[in-house]
Amino acid sequence: MALPVETFFLHPDAQGTLQSQIQQMIAQGILSGRFLRGEKLPSTRKLAAHLGVSRITVTIAYTELLANDYLSSRGRSGYYVSENAPVPPAFEPTRAGTDGVDWTRAIGQRFSGGDMPRKPADWAGYRYPFIYGQADPTLFDHANWRICALKALGQKDFTALTTDYYDQDDPQLIEFIARHTLPRRGITARPEQILITLGAQNALWLTTQVLLTQRRRAALEDPCYHALRDILSQSRCHVTPVRVDADGMPPDAIPPDTDVIFTTPSHQCPTTGTMPMHRRHELLRRAAGMDALIVEDDYEFEMSFLRSPSPALKSLDTDGRVIYVGSFSKSLFPGLRLGYLVGSEPFIREARALRASVLRHPPGHVQRTAAYFLSLGHHDALIRRMGSTLHERREVMADAIARNGLQISGQGANGGSSFWMQAPAGVDTRELARRLQARGVLIEPGHSFFSGPEQPTGFYRLAYSSIPVQRIASGVALVASEIQEMAGLALTAG
Amino acid sequence: MALPVETFFLHPDAQGTLQSQIQQMIAQGILSGRFLRGEKLPSTRKLAAHLGVSRITVTIAYTELLANDYLSSRGRSGYYVSENAPVPPAFEPTRAGTDGVDWTRAIGQRFSGGDMPRKPADWAGYRYPFIYGQADPTLFDHANWRICALKALGQKDFTALTTDYYDQDDPQLIEFIARHTLPRRGITARPEQILITLGAQNALWLTTQVLLTQRRRAALEDPCYHALRDILSQSRCHVTPVRVDADGMPPDAIPPDTDVIFTTPSHQCPTTGTMPMHRRHELLRRAAGMDALIVEDDYEFEMSFLRSPSPALKSLDTDGRVIYVGSFSKSLFPGLRLGYLVGSEPFIREARALRASVLRHPPGHVQRTAAYFLSLGHHDALIRRMGSTLHERREVMADAIARNGLQISGQGANGGSSFWMQAPAGVDTRELARRLQARGVLIEPGHSFFSGPEQPTGFYRLAYSSIPVQRIASGVALVASEIQEMAGLALTAG
Repeated sequence: MALPVETFFLHPDAQGTLQSQIQQMIAQGILSGRFLRGEKLPSTRKLAAHLGVSRITVTIAYTELLANDYLSSRGRSGYYVSENAPVPPAFEPTRAGTDGVDWTRAIGQRFSGGDMPRKPADWAGYRYPFIYGQADPTLFDHANWRICALKALGQKDFTALTTDYYDQDDPQLIEFIARHTLPRRGITARPEQILITLGAQNALWLTTQVLLTQRRRAALEDPCYHALRDILSQSRCHVTPVRVDADGMPPDAIPPDTDVIFTTPSHQCPTTGTMPMHRRHELLRRAAGMDALIVEDDYEFEMSFLRSPSPALKSLDTDGRVIYVGSFSKSLFPGLRLGYLVGSEPFIREARALRASVLRHPPGHVQRTAAYFLSLGHHDALIRRMGSTLHERREVMADAIARNGLQISGQGANGGSSFWMQAPAGVDTRELARRLQARGVLIEPGHSFFSGPEQPTGFYRLAYSSIPVQRIASGVALVASEIQEMAGLALTAG
Repeated sequence: MALPVETFFLHPDAQGTLQSQIQQMIAQGILSGRFLRGEKLPSTRKLAAHLGVSRITVTIAYTELLANDYLSSRGRSGYYVSENAPVPPAFEPTRAGTDGVDWTRAIGQRFSGGDMPRKPADWAGYRYPFIYGQADPTLFDHANWRICALKALGQKDFTALTTDYYDQDDPQLIEFIARHTLPRRGITARPEQILITLGAQNALWLTTQVLLTQRRRAALEDPCYHALRDILSQSRCHVTPVRVDADGMPPDAIPPDTDVIFTTPSHQCPTTGTMPMHRRHELLRRAAGMDALIVEDDYEFEMSFLRSPSPALKSLDTDGRVIYVGSFSKSLFPGLRLGYLVGSEPFIREARALRASVLRHPPGHVQRTAAYFLSLGHHDALIRRMGSTLHERREVMADAIARNGLQISGQGANGGSSFWMQAPAGVDTRELARRLQARGVLIEPGHSFFSGPEQPTGFYRLAYSSIPVQRIASGVALVASEIQEMAGLALTAG
């Protein structure tokens, strides 16, 4: 690759002759790893013109660098970074003391330190990845996604690809969601009641900013999706965790002065419980009674392979009290970063204005590609295929879990892609996860889903969205053997 | 298109017989525009199984709907929405009184009402679009962008496409920016000092959230980019507008208690002025003296076709005081939504954590496509091509402006894509823009770039990034004739 002449600069305050400045600039570029071995330098004529110096000055500098083996020349074809040039250190030494800013003072608000779930970046290389929420290359319909992406790159879609929508969305995607996706959840919505977001994460964040302030109160499920807790704590509202039972969030445990209730009725995260219809009605009545809003995160409803999902809570909502969060992260892939919010117009208007200020809109090409993939029916076909594979894996999981005497704490009534598990007393699942990782097994310890300082450490999540069916039995057996060993130790210690 | 059976729901609280409920559900779907003429209904067998009712119930419901001409049947191929079915109203009547929520109370923070610039959605259909910042289909390298997007959709890049990066970025894009893009601006940065954002808008927003609070003070240029003013006013910090001169922001006019200075030294927005080197040094000294940070928005540096751009302010920054904002919106296209932040690690760490909470990361495919387009050299070639076209347009613009006696108030020393214009006294450019629009000419009135209640109304922006060169002369002549007419009226009125 040729190094573009525009990357060469003489520092306006530099010392020394022009020739030595040029030498130094190139040597530093090589030493700092900016210029790599074998890369071609600009011709002496070009570099001289760019820097506004005479050509002979550049030629002399190059000759010196040749002599020092920073550069090599290949006859008439020009100058290259020499194959023998000094190698930059793998880790650049920190430039100690150069930062004159007191960052402790300069940073006005801190956002780091949240409970971001971490999986090893190379998780796909593990033999037993019981990890959650990543795309499975053996299930995804890569071929049709490519065709749709290519279609969305066509001349006809130049505007959809390149335009600055300001606060608007791709009308084709909005139309499809309104006409086909939401009706599957029993929801009717006009385009003005829908906002495309950068995934469910972004939808929950926008909702929190619009609805909650330091003076307001949110109720959220305990345990719940970690990132939601971080979002709420950043908003500095009052947060009441409400312990869920097998049917999800119990409405009468929600404090009466709550302003916004966050819930996952179709598929409680992470316990996977399904809220029965009578409790949904009860929850709506309770919210109406205290004039609270409900934010319904309807993630993973597409994975209902055991029986049809119940209609969304939003479909039962007659007075605009429910704000609905949908996502394509599970049914397509999380790197897509596409989700949506459905709610009353005054709410969507504010969420839209905030989104415009924060990021304007999700990239046009991503939206149009999804619109094609959905409207050509590929999404439905993909969901059916994923459903039957997940169904098969789930049966093998359930069987292996039973045979190994592991204890299930929660499992979705409609389907889903994970089991919520409980380890025997005395087994800390953080330690369990560490030990299993060394044996090629990835599980997710459950503590970080819980609120408060006393996070229970006996739960873990076993997901089957990324593990091949033939590895499940041995993987579950490894989990069981490790648990047995740890429980034995705990017993001895006790 | 076939209507998927999953979009059919019986409302759990519905009244009447099952058969009449089914009829009503389908009729309402048609009347509300969810089911369109010619779309195929599920078979009676499928629908019955899905709803859990007997097949004869569905058959009778379908027969009734046939009789009422909601449906038609095509022999053995099934039931379709009839071509004579009632048409839903073009505008759905607002469902008055159904919203039981008092949204005035429920909304905790308002974000709407900002100064979002608006151009007609069909701007490309206007004959003389002197509009700013949109991609020009005649200049963009569509073919190579497609090739790179397709490459980024390959099996090899499945992880980059689909993965949940949490708070991370595409390492290939980061590496290219560090090694090739930033060096062009004289900037050296390690990967940990770079964060990919959803365009410059998102970079400015993240920066504001991290650095500013209600107790802190920002100085910004006046006039400036509208959206930045909205971002700062949402953060509720104290804002001091600093009036720019021909050389950009005058350092000694910045109040001494300022915490963060926002500036566009390479190309002042919107006046296009270039800050001379001695003032850059002066600005850095002043910031160091008051221990303030500087946010440098280096937009449009790529459009330097008249002479090489000066190195970025950030390149002169020896103590980590400058936070640099870059963007691919102008050199690629705004719908891409890709930009980046460069700054000291403690700052980037907080901005990264906030980005993760707000949206996780920009979509993987967008990042990888850009990484390929950049690293294969297409971006450089595109910039050169854009530069020579913009150069030609600029000369024709300058000539037409001079011949028509229009007054230039600011023009970039290095290039750029617009002129900042001043109308004669008494001419309100908002009215000018309205009148010109009716004649097929789009210009941008300048008032909304200014801070405070007394926005000057005599400025306007004439951009040449989207207008074909052969239309420039007649377009400028139309602007001049309309101004002459309005100035004449103003004179008469005065």
